[in-house]
Amino acid sequence: MPLKTKLTDMLGIEHPLLLAPMGMVSGGALAASVTRAGGFGLIGAGYGDPAWIEREFGAAGNTPVGIGFITWSLAKQPQLLDMALARKPRTVMLSFGDAAPFAKKVKDAGALLICQVQNVKDAKTVAALGADIVVAQGTEAGGHGAGRATFTLVPAIADAVKVPVVAAGGIADGRGMAAALMLGAAGVLVGTRFSASQESLTHPNLKRKIVESDGDSTTRTKVFDTVRGYTWPHPYDGRAIRNAFLERWHGNDSGLQAAMETEGPRYKDAAAQGDTNTMVMFAGENIDLIHDLPPAAEIVARITKEAETLLSRPPGFR
Amino acid sequence: MPLKTKLTDMLGIEHPLLLAPMGMVSGGALAASVTRAGGFGLIGAGYGDPAWIEREFGAAGNTPVGIGFITWSLAKQPQLLDMALARKPRTVMLSFGDAAPFAKKVKDAGALLICQVQNVKDAKTVAALGADIVVAQGTEAGGHGAGRATFTLVPAIADAVKVPVVAAGGIADGRGMAAALMLGAAGVLVGTRFSASQESLTHPNLKRKIVESDGDSTTRTKVFDTVRGYTWPHPYDGRAIRNAFLERWHGNDSGLQAAMETEGPRYKDAAAQGDTNTMVMFAGENIDLIHDLPPAAEIVARITKEAETLLSRPPGFR
Repeated sequence: MPLKTKLTDMLGIEHPLLLAPMGMVSGGALAASVTRAGGFGLIGAGYGDPAWIEREFGAAGNTPVGIGFITWSLAKQPQLLDMALARKPRTVMLSFGDAAPFAKKVKDAGALLICQVQNVKDAKTVAALGADIVVAQGTEAGGHGAGRATFTLVPAIADAVKVPVVAAGGIADGRGMAAALMLGAAGVLVGTRFSASQESLTHPNLKRKIVESDGDSTTRTKVFDTVRGYTWPHPYDGRAIRNAFLERWHGNDSGLQAAMETEGPRYKDAAAQGDTNTMVMFAGENIDLIHDLPPAAEIVARITKEAETLLSRPPGFR
Repeated sequence: MPLKTKLTDMLGIEHPLLLAPMGMVSGGALAASVTRAGGFGLIGAGYGDPAWIEREFGAAGNTPVGIGFITWSLAKQPQLLDMALARKPRTVMLSFGDAAPFAKKVKDAGALLICQVQNVKDAKTVAALGADIVVAQGTEAGGHGAGRATFTLVPAIADAVKVPVVAAGGIADGRGMAAALMLGAAGVLVGTRFSASQESLTHPNLKRKIVESDGDSTTRTKVFDTVRGYTWPHPYDGRAIRNAFLERWHGNDSGLQAAMETEGPRYKDAAAQGDTNTMVMFAGENIDLIHDLPPAAEIVARITKEAETLLSRPPGFR
């Protein structure tokens, strides 16, 4: 029996499962696959390359998808929002920054406004701005995020806002989806599990590392933002699989800044070559639970079927 | 319908819910209340004051309870384990350090060995040592712990060991208990929610702060260990509600070390007076969900009833 929640109602989808709009990972093909499988896919606008965004909307074809922006980055190129809204996305997701300048425009264009937050205070703020859906992102998430953990953030935000809450950070299987619903979420937003899918734009070397590594091996860090020249505002950093570059510079941001003349180009070359000792390998703490690289549709089916089974025959009753 | 799991079978208890053995908080009265309410209570041996431990075992009377040690601290006073085993506790819990020197003695005495871990590697280690129960403690827990979060740690450890896994860190209500079971746990270990109970030995000023504060206001820090003169091994630190003392010294451990001649006595006096601007206020990220100071039995009843209701009528099916 499929799960029906406020999220499936609101989006008119079969399963309460969204693709996280991971920059340079969640392209049009992946987003469209997730939507076609009964969830809902969001393209990751990342730091905002207009040609990339146009191409990925094109790759999604006629399948409905949404788009997610890094809000502080969008503020530097606000025209990207107009460009995206011209494609009539069903949803626009804003994360990591002040949603206020963009909220009205999204809603006026007829798109659902999804705001991702990392604490209760910000959840109340985006609810007041008119967010239709609030994503509660826990610190176990891969890539950018902040400090609070999914397990307590989801119920706290569910108590604090009236709109549907979606759990993000840590969900890789049906156990996670079922747990998120128990905590008060109306659905889940899944990143790393889809980064390790056939359709993702993730570097093949990173896909392999996600499969091989365990959750003990990730850390939140700023070093990869620094070396790539991105100035993320407080309190955001990114969770990545540890490698030699991270071990060398983590906790020594000023040293890395001072060494950028040599480290910047060296990093760029190594990343272009897919050197896993150097390149950023964004991944969540849930990589213990990821053992293969299936098509996205299979991931949607596995997670939702397992959750449905767990919820229909809950553990603890016998 | 009461929940039955491997944990309730193993301990012969009604509800799969354990009291966290919080040092100087979980005394005999609280532990006995939790056991009498159908869960299982553990006295917190903390840094190991023999007179305190004897007194609290006495306060538990004839009600079966367990005891939990800080393993690296127990290693300095191993005779405390003999003292505790002489009281015939049903369980002994070891956290924060190498359980190897103590595992056999606990099991030979006929007590169940509970080992609390904070990552998958340590879970495998304690399973190999013969732990009967593994507690997976997430970073959202109040007081001492480490970096990985409950939401992904529980399923990862459930996949890695054969013995029952108990979720710790973040559980304050039935949503958390139900979610923990979905994630693969056989039960939950609850700390902060019981610190804010009538029977806990928590300072009344801290009890009030737990009720008043929200989960955004806690941080993991080493400052309170440093100022109290406790040398915790890597990677452990403690989650506490932020206050003026924490804000002043967090991230400046060497500065605090250098100022100990004045800061040490000042801290001690302030803590003795219950000065919440200065004293350590251990609490988990789940304090958003804590709004009152009921008797422990009421907490057990609320959590388990809410979990039973959620699990018998899961969200998402209608």
